Amino acid sequence: MKYEAVNFQEKFDKFNEYWSPKIIALMNDYHFKLVKFQGEFVWHKHDDTDEVFIVINGEMSIEFRDGTVKLKKGELFVVPKGAEHKPIAEKECELMLVEPAGTVNTGDTVSNLTAEDDVWI
Amino acid sequence: MKYEAVNFQEKFDKFNEYWSPKIIALMNDYHFKLVKFQGEFVWHKHDDTDEVFIVINGEMSIEFRDGTVKLKKGELFVVPKGAEHKPIAEKECELMLVEPAGTVNTGDTVSNLTAEDDVWI
Repeated sequence: MKYEAVNFQEKFDKFNEYWSPKIIALMNDYHFKLVKFQGEFVWHKHDDTDEVFIVINGEMSIEFRDGTVKLKKGELFVVPKGAEHKPIAEKECELMLVEPAGTVNTGDTVSNLTAEDDVWI
Repeated sequence: MKYEAVNFQEKFDKFNEYWSPKIIALMNDYHFKLVKFQGEFVWHKHDDTDEVFIVINGEMSIEFRDGTVKLKKGELFVVPKGAEHKPIAEKECELMLVEPAGTVNTGDTVSNLTAEDDVWI
């Protein structure tokens, strides 16, 4: 059998769209997704799940209603279930998300930034 | 409220033991763990869960009964549920594991490498 690793940079090199997470792996019923973005996202929350952010390249902030966390390459943060949050990056940022399969990027908020939740790359 | 990111390198700098995963984050009922190792682990499997390997520094292989996958910094691999596997690294490797809380490092194999499954760092 042929076993092959997933290389983050090779996957990032395959797309340029912002705010449009691409699935790279399935573990049980969880997806690992890569996303590129710059600028401000919409305020939203995920009522049923925590969400992991891991910065692969660049830096970003996640605003909460009562504070902000800054994340740079090689850093991880868990957004708690139900917490309203808004990701922001001044420059292009490359991020990995870990969340249950089927999680919508804009959570409870419908927006023109709402992306398909099942696109593999 | 104070929000703080987890920096992988800062966490790795806090321990030197091999084959002894340290928890850095909880997402729902999943743990993100950091582990350092060198040499060969024991053959084992996890009957109830997939297991994600992400190389943070260095390189490693995972042997299966019917093949091998090589992983280097910035690469991810999902070991399927039930698949017998054996991690190996010639030089020290720094790895992140993602798996359900309570997953034992040696799976179904009892070994002197079996580590506690609930140590945070």
